[in-house]
Amino acid sequence: MTAIMILGLVAAGLTTVAFIPQVHKTWKTKSAKDLSLGMYLIFTSGVVLWLIYGILRKDIPIIAANAVTLSLTLVLLYFKIFYKE
Amino acid sequence: MTAIMILGLVAAGLTTVAFIPQVHKTWKTKSAKDLSLGMYLIFTSGVVLWLIYGILRKDIPIIAANAVTLSLTLVLLYFKIFYKE
Repeated sequence: MTAIMILGLVAAGLTTVAFIPQVHKTWKTKSAKDLSLGMYLIFTSGVVLWLIYGILRKDIPIIAANAVTLSLTLVLLYFKIFYKE
Repeated sequence: MTAIMILGLVAAGLTTVAFIPQVHKTWKTKSAKDLSLGMYLIFTSGVVLWLIYGILRKDIPIIAANAVTLSLTLVLLYFKIFYKE
């Protein structure tokens, strides 16, 4: 595995796990008022396309990163809609 | 350009422009309380690595998408810190 591949995997890892603190904060505060529904709808559709892209190219890192990101952004979408106030 | 490449470009485009509605909402409401500082710190570092990855691989779509995403997430980081309440 080349240094550049490792860099790509770390980048993918960071932009995936980044959503965990947001899920935790929103779950704890039960407040999603400041989160943009538009952002999470657009971002989630982009992640779905990345997932299809990864599957078509049989690219495991892209599939893995976007499957995790998709589950996290779907949770945030659920919170955003569910904690409507 | 193959259909799969177009799919990748659209996915990159969506996961990039997705941050615009969040920047707009936070700028309008001047409220970033519900945004997770941890998320944007981790996500921004991941985007920086993606940018370096794209430069090393001379991959224009990855460079372009992550340069735009970086500017948007830096604005959100600034808002999150600046609108501290």
